[in-house]
Amino acid sequence: MLDPKDLRRTVVIEHVAPVVDGGRYPVKREVGDRVEVSADVFKEGHEFLLAFVKYRRADAPDWRESPMRLVDNDRWAGAFTVEANARYLFTIEALPDPFRSWLADLVKRVAAGQDVASELREGAAQVREAAGRATGADAAALGKWLARIEKAPSQAEAVAAAGEAALAALMDRHLDRADATWAEHEYEVVVDRERGRFAAWYEFFPRSGVAGRHGTFRDAEAQLERAAAMGFDVVYLPPIHPIGRAHRKGANNALTAKPGEPGSPWAIGGVEGGHDAVHPDLGTLADFDRFVSRARALGLEVALDFAIQASPDHPWVREHPEWFFHRPDGTIKYAENPPKKYQDVYPLNFYGEDPRAAWQEMKRVIEFWIGHGVTTFRVDNPHTKPVRFWEWLIREVQRAHPEIVFLAEAFTRPKMMRVLAKAGFTQSYTYFTWRNEKTELQEYLTEITQPPMAEYFRGNLWPNTPDILHEALQQGGRPAFKMRLVLAATLSSLYGIYSGYELGENEPFAPGSEEYLRSEKYELKTRDWGAAGNLVDFITRVNRIRHEHRALQLYRNLVFYGADDPHVVWYGKMTADRDDVVFVAVNLDPFATRAAMVDVPIDELGIAPDQPYRMHELLSDVSYEWRGPRGFVELDPARDLAQIFVLRR
Amino acid sequence: MLDPKDLRRTVVIEHVAPVVDGGRYPVKREVGDRVEVSADVFKEGHEFLLAFVKYRRADAPDWRESPMRLVDNDRWAGAFTVEANARYLFTIEALPDPFRSWLADLVKRVAAGQDVASELREGAAQVREAAGRATGADAAALGKWLARIEKAPSQAEAVAAAGEAALAALMDRHLDRADATWAEHEYEVVVDRERGRFAAWYEFFPRSGVAGRHGTFRDAEAQLERAAAMGFDVVYLPPIHPIGRAHRKGANNALTAKPGEPGSPWAIGGVEGGHDAVHPDLGTLADFDRFVSRARALGLEVALDFAIQASPDHPWVREHPEWFFHRPDGTIKYAENPPKKYQDVYPLNFYGEDPRAAWQEMKRVIEFWIGHGVTTFRVDNPHTKPVRFWEWLIREVQRAHPEIVFLAEAFTRPKMMRVLAKAGFTQSYTYFTWRNEKTELQEYLTEITQPPMAEYFRGNLWPNTPDILHEALQQGGRPAFKMRLVLAATLSSLYGIYSGYELGENEPFAPGSEEYLRSEKYELKTRDWGAAGNLVDFITRVNRIRHEHRALQLYRNLVFYGADDPHVVWYGKMTADRDDVVFVAVNLDPFATRAAMVDVPIDELGIAPDQPYRMHELLSDVSYEWRGPRGFVELDPARDLAQIFVLRR
Repeated sequence: MLDPKDLRRTVVIEHVAPVVDGGRYPVKREVGDRVEVSADVFKEGHEFLLAFVKYRRADAPDWRESPMRLVDNDRWAGAFTVEANARYLFTIEALPDPFRSWLADLVKRVAAGQDVASELREGAAQVREAAGRATGADAAALGKWLARIEKAPSQAEAVAAAGEAALAALMDRHLDRADATWAEHEYEVVVDRERGRFAAWYEFFPRSGVAGRHGTFRDAEAQLERAAAMGFDVVYLPPIHPIGRAHRKGANNALTAKPGEPGSPWAIGGVEGGHDAVHPDLGTLADFDRFVSRARALGLEVALDFAIQASPDHPWVREHPEWFFHRPDGTIKYAENPPKKYQDVYPLNFYGEDPRAAWQEMKRVIEFWIGHGVTTFRVDNPHTKPVRFWEWLIREVQRAHPEIVFLAEAFTRPKMMRVLAKAGFTQSYTYFTWRNEKTELQEYLTEITQPPMAEYFRGNLWPNTPDILHEALQQGGRPAFKMRLVLAATLSSLYGIYSGYELGENEPFAPGSEEYLRSEKYELKTRDWGAAGNLVDFITRVNRIRHEHRALQLYRNLVFYGADDPHVVWYGKMTADRDDVVFVAVNLDPFATRAAMVDVPIDELGIAPDQPYRMHELLSDVSYEWRGPRGFVELDPARDLAQIFVLRR
Repeated sequence: MLDPKDLRRTVVIEHVAPVVDGGRYPVKREVGDRVEVSADVFKEGHEFLLAFVKYRRADAPDWRESPMRLVDNDRWAGAFTVEANARYLFTIEALPDPFRSWLADLVKRVAAGQDVASELREGAAQVREAAGRATGADAAALGKWLARIEKAPSQAEAVAAAGEAALAALMDRHLDRADATWAEHEYEVVVDRERGRFAAWYEFFPRSGVAGRHGTFRDAEAQLERAAAMGFDVVYLPPIHPIGRAHRKGANNALTAKPGEPGSPWAIGGVEGGHDAVHPDLGTLADFDRFVSRARALGLEVALDFAIQASPDHPWVREHPEWFFHRPDGTIKYAENPPKKYQDVYPLNFYGEDPRAAWQEMKRVIEFWIGHGVTTFRVDNPHTKPVRFWEWLIREVQRAHPEIVFLAEAFTRPKMMRVLAKAGFTQSYTYFTWRNEKTELQEYLTEITQPPMAEYFRGNLWPNTPDILHEALQQGGRPAFKMRLVLAATLSSLYGIYSGYELGENEPFAPGSEEYLRSEKYELKTRDWGAAGNLVDFITRVNRIRHEHRALQLYRNLVFYGADDPHVVWYGKMTADRDDVVFVAVNLDPFATRAAMVDVPIDELGIAPDQPYRMHELLSDVSYEWRGPRGFVELDPARDLAQIFVLRR
């Protein structure tokens, strides 16, 4: 029951950070990040301690280490850098430092005038043992130190030799770790590639855009060019699969489609195939491959929608009726949220006799599209499928494809939003769309960009989606569109818009509705991208600023500062070494000019109170000279509702 | 790899409370407590959920359960009562409630005028399955419900039958739990007996008290009577073992004892024996047994000191030299904190080749004294021994003897204090002695009596110990003694004094020292217990108030309220059902009268603003009528520096 070796491993190591739920879920970081690790490390008695962060790729056997230092009150800190897009593990090793403990006592005894002959013999024994563990030059060097201590002509000279830093360094290198204590758990870090943290998304329907007919992937290459020209990084396509004919929805979500109406792309599956097929009107799989190549050439990644549901015509319905819910009469149930009915969609039953086959099929679908160059999946309504399914799926997929990004489209209760991120989603949609007042914006953005939530949650902010045209845009017009875009693009390193935003499209289906009128979900649309008043240049400029400023590419560096007008938000983002410092002022009132005195953290920035500094406003390309801890901004909806400053010294 | 049954267990159960460090350590409660359990419990989709606290004694195989209810925002709460002095385990089971989910949808469909023939067949199938799981009367009853639904003359009547509460109750009783999800961990609760939480301790040296000679256990029975008469619950004796002669300390900690000086009881072990022997001058083991019996008869428990160290004359030194530290010349090291030396004491080496024998010996010693009626151990300096040793020892001892109380005498850094409590100590000494100002008292007492710390830490407050005569007592005289006693006795349910306190003994060894002059650690003392100005009646009264007021017997119910004088602390303790409500006012300034307006939480107490209530002051036995949310107290050091009110309506 008691292993004697183990009984000597007595260092207490607790409250390790960063961890999520005590280590139940991994923390998230990105390639190149320095992972700052801390823990309470202490032991009975008065010995000096040593502690190390131990870390490794989860798929590599050997631990690497980096030393920790005592911060205060038994809290220790260290760090390691994650260089690969992979899962890492880290833990902590700690042990007493017998040499430094001995040395410290020796110095106190000498200071008190005590005889230290016996103590010097103890120290010599430690050096001898270290020499025994060392080889080569180190062994020889330790042997010389041993001789210097043992053969010193006086205790004073022996003590002086023992106290030299070079000896301590050698002793460190040949420390006996046999009785070191390791933390009780290993903690996981999912290291995503940078795109997992920094990306501007552009959503469009590839079937739209060509007057009078269904667009193809070839046609949609024009959209890729537009997206690339505006500076987006990811294009996200609603489902590209065959669409069911049974109970197909018509324009404006009409219960029955008229002949020729294309139906909702989320009614996935037809006689032409299911989740691994391409809608024939979009082209062939080869056309899709060409589309992906074209995107890549433009510096864009392609994100597909992954919606686990089937139209009544989906091949799964014939081949795997057991994956669906059945009525007592044997027919398959369509989706319902009583009393609402969604006859064009069958939900999958995750609670059948044996859910394994369906789970594996989902993984196969994802891997199929990875095989066709898709790097990102925007997952539709993940909160209506079991959390543990996602935990399994994402881990399984990323095992072979750590580069794959999953975005959770869950607009639901807060704890479900959080657990989906914890379970593995790289990014998450947020409540940003519904946070329009200063206080709620500050509170919510602080919550999602700071620990504990930011250890696992990356919020991707969307001013609009095909499902959500917020009242703020319906009523605030063009100034509101600019305001919400700047907020999304600078509060988070991840944001996206659904096409049409650049044209200020804001007609709701009905008053009080967040649905678009003539929603593109149910019909083809053509647009005049050069229409008067479009925001293309503005969006392009904002995306360029994001690309030029690393501070805006980081997620966890958002800090709100004081602004003395309740309609003005004022926040900053900076790099760790402060060589990029960006401040943003946004007037949340699209109807009136607002001015505010704003706080600048000059102390933190190392700027003296009387020292002038330049605030270069990037949207207007105008520089201002500020001085002291407060500045002044004036934000006119007609001109510059938002300002993005970079600090220049 | 994937067990199909397991894949259907998809309820998310997280953030379970109460737990310590995510379940790494047990929480502490006492016999009769209601353990309030909560957790986040949720699942994808919209089904109704059911959740249960599952609990059992750790040594019993079968789980019991108690239902949880949804509080809000996916947080669920339930409770169970711990009836035995034992370790308990609890966890959570949750599952969808298919019948209520079906019923809720049915009602919505009916309200929307939909045909529900198919839905009624589904509901009937659920009832039929439940009938199949039931037996006897329930099976028959479910059969009847089934018939009522299936044979109802109309859908409306079938729906009405399905909605009756009696059916839901039956369905609850025969729920299919096969796919229920259990929380990922079981959480431990150490349930101590009430004395673990509520006790007044009295420390005395049994060798003292008889003029001109070493006292015996027989003599010390008089001390038991005094302690019992003052209303104490536990008497704690410094070590009662033989004392070493080598390097014995003399009076006032002199390096060498004069002939006849008794030495420090903490220099344990002599030719007469070690930790399992009784000092011959105190008597025999049989005398000790009689002393324990006498204590019991007086309603007192006996606590022994457990100090893991040996005098040079301890039998361990001869029999197990390997349990000690050795110098290069082979001699055994005495205790040192360089440059200080403690030649009369050898510390034990917990890092020898095989520490197991020493660990087992410590357990044997504890069990030896348990065999002689000792129920409580005050552990000397536990922070100088490995934490994991204590974790093992206390668990091992309490496995057979759950009634044993361990008090940690650690005055050290905060994280070590905490981890010792987490590792198993029933009670802990605190920083109370050094918290004398209002703000620091409020902050510290709130910290140790509220979660998270109070889940595992019970602070035992000592105004003095043989090692600590605080400056506040040295300078504040009798008023300070009364003030610190009332604070200790009412801030915590656990407190203690070292004898002499009742006489106001406050002469330090030297100015600025916290050591007593002529410390009883090194010499025999006789006292005139009836000396003028003694606090015996005062202490007796305070202990009686503690015994009469359950609110003062609880640990985690301390709340500070506002008092508008910086020298007046004002706090309350109440029982959960508020049938005992006590308020305490203490003037922290022993030199001047202080008066304050104090806040009374009348809303929480259900007292209307214009409703008078009686505040009966228990030390003076005087009643006051108060009205409204503020009262007035005036505290004169010469008379009543502290007031203890009980609320009477």
